[in-house]
Amino acid sequence: MLNIPALEKLVHELSRLPGIGPKTAQRLAYFILKSGNDYSDRLGLALTQVQSEVHDCPRCFNYTDSDFCRYCMDPNRSDDSLCIVEEPSDIMRIESSGAFRGRYHVLHGVISPLEGIGPKNLKIRELLDRVDAGLEGTEPEIKEIILALDADLEGDTTILYLAKQLQGKRLKLSRIAHGVPIGSDIDFIDDRTMNRAMQNRVEL
Amino acid sequence: MLNIPALEKLVHELSRLPGIGPKTAQRLAYFILKSGNDYSDRLGLALTQVQSEVHDCPRCFNYTDSDFCRYCMDPNRSDDSLCIVEEPSDIMRIESSGAFRGRYHVLHGVISPLEGIGPKNLKIRELLDRVDAGLEGTEPEIKEIILALDADLEGDTTILYLAKQLQGKRLKLSRIAHGVPIGSDIDFIDDRTMNRAMQNRVEL
Repeated sequence: MLNIPALEKLVHELSRLPGIGPKTAQRLAYFILKSGNDYSDRLGLALTQVQSEVHDCPRCFNYTDSDFCRYCMDPNRSDDSLCIVEEPSDIMRIESSGAFRGRYHVLHGVISPLEGIGPKNLKIRELLDRVDAGLEGTEPEIKEIILALDADLEGDTTILYLAKQLQGKRLKLSRIAHGVPIGSDIDFIDDRTMNRAMQNRVEL
Repeated sequence: MLNIPALEKLVHELSRLPGIGPKTAQRLAYFILKSGNDYSDRLGLALTQVQSEVHDCPRCFNYTDSDFCRYCMDPNRSDDSLCIVEEPSDIMRIESSGAFRGRYHVLHGVISPLEGIGPKNLKIRELLDRVDAGLEGTEPEIKEIILALDADLEGDTTILYLAKQLQGKRLKLSRIAHGVPIGSDIDFIDDRTMNRAMQNRVEL
């Protein structure tokens, strides 16, 4: 359509980004072209740097540019509780709420047989090793694990699998509450959320 | 917030793209990081290639990777009429309608005193040279100029300026019609569009 292969290629690569359709990708490509070498060079450099400098924290698998991530290094956080998340971006969401002051563990995905993702593709072995090291005394002991995974089929499957693996490990296992969001109108809540809110009602 | 300078830099560069806010930029950056070297390398290469291979057509200032753009080169298009647009992307919109089979001229902007963009910053001198070359017989003569600019303050200012410059050049000058879009509900049309549609009513 554009008949300029280099431009079409840029549109193609941009349209692989999440939430960027072909139309938006085209608009972005025209903007990049209009902005000239300066912007392209800076974006290109940012891409190179992020890949060379950012890597997984070897303990919790959050992103970091140091030996360990800031949450693993922070001496003011409790070693007693560990929050399990799907992606590093979930940590930011939890941190901004200020509701959790323990350590994290990033699975880098959830079990999804349809997409061919099994426990071996996730950081589950590493999680169990962390728990065992705590029990053996080579690492601080973990007393509670909070599962902060999505309440969808894959999230539920992963939670069931983890619960089985963590059986008999002398720790409290919980998952975050799902229900009606604070401030939202009950009129507009979907059936599954309402079902969950009813099941998990809290006694007053 | 992210506390990883390389990641923050990538978010910053991405958030400079049109329509990409800080939240979306962050989501894109996490996707890029998760996709690994492979995607970053391909996007980086596409950025480099688009800047090195794509340039302005020296006749009409559309983008091209050849000596002249495809519309200037096409022997089946009429030299009689010239359509003036603001950006190369506008050409695509007009082409997909199939309503125009002449040549193009891209101004690369519109006159905007507020942003400090005057006639000298646009490809207006080059347009007048094209018209004059036609009159002198060194290039094909242009018999009609159609202005396909937006109907906003800057577009109207640019049209007034061009009309003045092209006075006495022996050519038909027109601008595309603005009015109620086909298929849209008259209920939802804004006042300015309705005013224009009334002013420019077509006799039956």
